[in-house]
Amino acid sequence: MAPVSFTVRSTDGDARLGELRTAHGTVQTPAFMPVGTQGAVKAVRHRELEEAGAEIILANTYHLLLRPGDELVARLGGLHRFIGWARPILTDSGGFQVYSLAQRRVVTEDGADFQSHLDGTRHLLTPERAADIQAQLGSDIAMVLDECLALPATREEAAIAMARSARWAERGRRRFHALRAGEVAGVRVSNPGQAQFGIVQGGVFRDLRHESAEATVAVGFEGYAIGGLSVGEPVEQMYAVAGETAERLPADRPRYLMGVGTPEDLVECVARGVDMFDCVLPTRNARNGQLFTSAGRINIKNARYADDEGPLDPECGCYACRHHSRAYLRHLYLAGEMTAGVLNTLHNLSFYLDTMRRIRDAIAFRTFASFRQEFLRSASRLSLDS
Amino acid sequence: MAPVSFTVRSTDGDARLGELRTAHGTVQTPAFMPVGTQGAVKAVRHRELEEAGAEIILANTYHLLLRPGDELVARLGGLHRFIGWARPILTDSGGFQVYSLAQRRVVTEDGADFQSHLDGTRHLLTPERAADIQAQLGSDIAMVLDECLALPATREEAAIAMARSARWAERGRRRFHALRAGEVAGVRVSNPGQAQFGIVQGGVFRDLRHESAEATVAVGFEGYAIGGLSVGEPVEQMYAVAGETAERLPADRPRYLMGVGTPEDLVECVARGVDMFDCVLPTRNARNGQLFTSAGRINIKNARYADDEGPLDPECGCYACRHHSRAYLRHLYLAGEMTAGVLNTLHNLSFYLDTMRRIRDAIAFRTFASFRQEFLRSASRLSLDS
Repeated sequence: MAPVSFTVRSTDGDARLGELRTAHGTVQTPAFMPVGTQGAVKAVRHRELEEAGAEIILANTYHLLLRPGDELVARLGGLHRFIGWARPILTDSGGFQVYSLAQRRVVTEDGADFQSHLDGTRHLLTPERAADIQAQLGSDIAMVLDECLALPATREEAAIAMARSARWAERGRRRFHALRAGEVAGVRVSNPGQAQFGIVQGGVFRDLRHESAEATVAVGFEGYAIGGLSVGEPVEQMYAVAGETAERLPADRPRYLMGVGTPEDLVECVARGVDMFDCVLPTRNARNGQLFTSAGRINIKNARYADDEGPLDPECGCYACRHHSRAYLRHLYLAGEMTAGVLNTLHNLSFYLDTMRRIRDAIAFRTFASFRQEFLRSASRLSLDS
Repeated sequence: MAPVSFTVRSTDGDARLGELRTAHGTVQTPAFMPVGTQGAVKAVRHRELEEAGAEIILANTYHLLLRPGDELVARLGGLHRFIGWARPILTDSGGFQVYSLAQRRVVTEDGADFQSHLDGTRHLLTPERAADIQAQLGSDIAMVLDECLALPATREEAAIAMARSARWAERGRRRFHALRAGEVAGVRVSNPGQAQFGIVQGGVFRDLRHESAEATVAVGFEGYAIGGLSVGEPVEQMYAVAGETAERLPADRPRYLMGVGTPEDLVECVARGVDMFDCVLPTRNARNGQLFTSAGRINIKNARYADDEGPLDPECGCYACRHHSRAYLRHLYLAGEMTAGVLNTLHNLSFYLDTMRRIRDAIAFRTFASFRQEFLRSASRLSLDS
């Protein structure tokens, strides 16, 4: 099976229109990946995701390792088959959740030893093990294990973590090749077409980012991620670091900005050459009643919507906007109905995925600059319920 | 607008195949009404309900009175428009929830004075007020206010409550006529085609049931409900009382057994002449991982399903059964994913609504007796995870 391949079809400034081909289908880029942490994007069914235009989802290795376990998933034919999702899947390495969720974490050169936040069981996540788990899960894109920084980090701390991440990248890549060659006993390779992306670290330090990009590219991956951003730094700094890092990555490989961001962030980072994004913002905010619309953000529990018969977003064609009023959505939210989470998630994901579609159209027609200007103007003009 | 009308199209023994025509469409009977307490059937969207074959849903007057309030619903054009559901809706009177949920309840001949379980506000629910609220909600079928019994009840207590319910039925019906004639100031009649059903009470006492049926029929309603059953009495007694009460109701009016029941209860009570049912069992059990299948009940968290790649129910055509394995459904449930509630609810409702379809087909082909025998045999044979 051919590994993942990527083609840039056209550009507009630094923005790129591309196609990512995988064993489970093609992803139009720039792409947003809804987060399906435990093998399900919270509150929505796969069919709705597909209808909303999701061409790829992200799943979290840390969570799946703990429950139901990569062994079980592999035995049942891999993640696609286990969860019943036929389109591409990207899995993260687990490193970020070990850093943010796990207990009694001890990180050494070998890897991260931690206790599950669910049941206290001990696990060791090394660059090799991260590759093994993702091979068993059988995602289309696996991520190398990197070391996440405790913030705020000094330059020295960032340099140490970056250097270790570079060594781990080499180990992870070596293991990935061994897995592909069938040389790792006891690991089922659920998806022979799996690709592996490296991750550039280095915090907000320009020279470290350059060094990390160089080292990661030297190892050689099917794609490159920019990690460790959107973790509290000012948004303009995030844009700058993302842009300068993207510049240093090979033009013929996809660039993935991890864990970012707001709709404006997506537009701004596409403008700086990023191709792929993931973020919990649309799904998590939806469950909290925070909704993205073409006229700005809405907090649906606001009393002003109590008898508002209009749709959430008149410019949106999602199920919630076609069938229900703001008044009803507010009622469902205040009444604690699960359906509030379902409808709000459908809407926010539709908004994100529509935004990506509009971004791609704008690049294709070489009108991205004016699209960007107009998008940011309307986004900043109206934060309706702030 | 014509009020609700009912036609019995054919019978098989005491089982009846009928059509209930309302201003919002026709309901094939025997029918099961999914419970949409707060104007939403928990966890599923209206589209899925329609796809599963729900032709009518039930909403709870008590909950809607407290939130968002019948005034608001009326101002926004009635419940159908407010919730975006175009098919028929039945509303209960609120009496049962005042009895089971409200605080500091004082019931007098006038009505029930109670405090909201949400915010402690005081409300008075009289037979007239119950009719007014439901007129404002604009359901297709409104229920008269009745008095619910604290259990276990003596014959004397049951007789007193039954007699009061009969007096309330007269008052409720008088108000219903006044509303229809436009004689009640300050109340918006959201649905001029609304019908009103009376409720037969009398506990498990045969003579009281007979007396209540006679009194309720004497008042005259578009349909008749059998209330106060499935509240702890042995199931055989419930069947007997339902059957004997149904016998005493006019053949040309729909008969609705309130709050019942299991799939077997539905079959058994259709056999005794009941046309309509509602129950939280399929939806509530779904959220607790208790699933109904053609081979018996399943508790999806059971370890035996951990690597079961088969569908929940091979004979079911619902989305969950077509797209997902028991292993994945178990994983979603254990992982606490909302999608577990969504998929399980879809399945259980599909099972219930399919059962009703099969019941109707069996009556149409006059094979109901053998259908009933076979259904109960397979249901009792296998309670898989008990």
